[in-house]
Amino acid sequence: MKKVVITGAEGTIGTALRKDYGDRYEFSGITLTPQDFPSTVANIADLDAIQPAFEGMDAVIHLAADVGVTSPWESIHQNNIIGTYNVYEAARRAGVECVVFASSNHAVGGYEVAGSPAIYALDDERQIDTTVQIRPDSYYGVSKAFGEAMGRYYVDAFGMRVFCLRIGWVRADDNPHPEERTGSAWLDLPTPEDFYGRLRTIWLSKRDCSQLIAKCLDADHIDYGIYYGMSDNPRKFWSLDNARADLGYEPQDSAPVDLS
Amino acid sequence: MKKVVITGAEGTIGTALRKDYGDRYEFSGITLTPQDFPSTVANIADLDAIQPAFEGMDAVIHLAADVGVTSPWESIHQNNIIGTYNVYEAARRAGVECVVFASSNHAVGGYEVAGSPAIYALDDERQIDTTVQIRPDSYYGVSKAFGEAMGRYYVDAFGMRVFCLRIGWVRADDNPHPEERTGSAWLDLPTPEDFYGRLRTIWLSKRDCSQLIAKCLDADHIDYGIYYGMSDNPRKFWSLDNARADLGYEPQDSAPVDLS
Repeated sequence: MKKVVITGAEGTIGTALRKDYGDRYEFSGITLTPQDFPSTVANIADLDAIQPAFEGMDAVIHLAADVGVTSPWESIHQNNIIGTYNVYEAARRAGVECVVFASSNHAVGGYEVAGSPAIYALDDERQIDTTVQIRPDSYYGVSKAFGEAMGRYYVDAFGMRVFCLRIGWVRADDNPHPEERTGSAWLDLPTPEDFYGRLRTIWLSKRDCSQLIAKCLDADHIDYGIYYGMSDNPRKFWSLDNARADLGYEPQDSAPVDLS
Repeated sequence: MKKVVITGAEGTIGTALRKDYGDRYEFSGITLTPQDFPSTVANIADLDAIQPAFEGMDAVIHLAADVGVTSPWESIHQNNIIGTYNVYEAARRAGVECVVFASSNHAVGGYEVAGSPAIYALDDERQIDTTVQIRPDSYYGVSKAFGEAMGRYYVDAFGMRVFCLRIGWVRADDNPHPEERTGSAWLDLPTPEDFYGRLRTIWLSKRDCSQLIAKCLDADHIDYGIYYGMSDNPRKFWSLDNARADLGYEPQDSAPVDLS
């Protein structure tokens, strides 16, 4: 079994992954607090503290981050710029071959902002692939673009393999049809239709998310790729084409069409 | 006259710009040491220290950086990540509308590394435009990709206008045909032909560089753009097409074909 260390292993995605694929990979974690699974307690902003957790690993899944789209630069800088460099560098020093980096659609979220809310409509035909130019919607998005760029460098310079997943909206309760129906800290979504229209396009079920990450761990033939991560939703403006083609990603879930 | 503050105004590019266009713009500087022209002495890594120099400005030209392709992350992080955020943020706080950011071809230098030295040949037809995916060849290149991403965010979020110039090789002596003929700190260029072949493609004369920057200062119709910056050299693998079309850039100089 491949030995895989997960940063932020206690979060929504890490928890789902350990549950869904704990029999396929030997997982360990890097977490801010002690856990009931094997985990090094350390802050990713401290390279020396996280380094031991990388020794002997086959891969790292880098989930730990400030995930706030409205977070201030100071926190993004500490957690997502310094932290992400540290993860790549610790992996390099330990000879870890593969990094799966939780990027985000927010690295290119400016396209969504410019198209919202019309882009959510089921009959809207716009599709954005992973070759579009970087267009962050936030400091958070800038930090994810940074992490993708750093990953590309580590591939070319150090022979690492890096997968950047522009993950959509993974929800702790996995619910694609939530109670709350309006509001957004960063995007004006005045009606329930707008809110659900957005969620319906970018929802990623926990098991689809786990599958996507596992496909990366198994894709020994790929050295670098950027992929969107969504379920097989009825409206998709982020293209899944290269995730299907390169990785064999086959989402099992789909957000319901029904808005009611 | 537009009031324009130049970070790193004492360097090769800043010096040329002040000489060539000092009668068209009211230039001031931010420099690490006192100069014989109006300049705030401050380190761009210190936001509070540079802020006053942005007040009342129409534009900023951000040249200050660690420009070392082999520089370690620690210096790149301090000067080019923190420093570049500070410049954008100081501009935003002061209401400066326009930022010309000295990016670099090293943000996508991985394409050159992969093609070198064949890509330097006069009859090689590969052309790389500014829509290609980010592919840094160094921490330096990563930091320039970061600066481009941050600039894009400031355009969308704060209505700023940002020009990212992937500047080639501006030489203090302006010489496109130098004495030194081999070696490179970051790229294997074993023969004089390889070395000069490279310089011949990415050379940017000082006056062409000044023109390109001035075209950005005057391009009030553009909100964001990424442009390569080279002279009209006999071999160009970085495309100048969008710089010509968007900005009206018309390089006056060309590196000589002759290798001898």
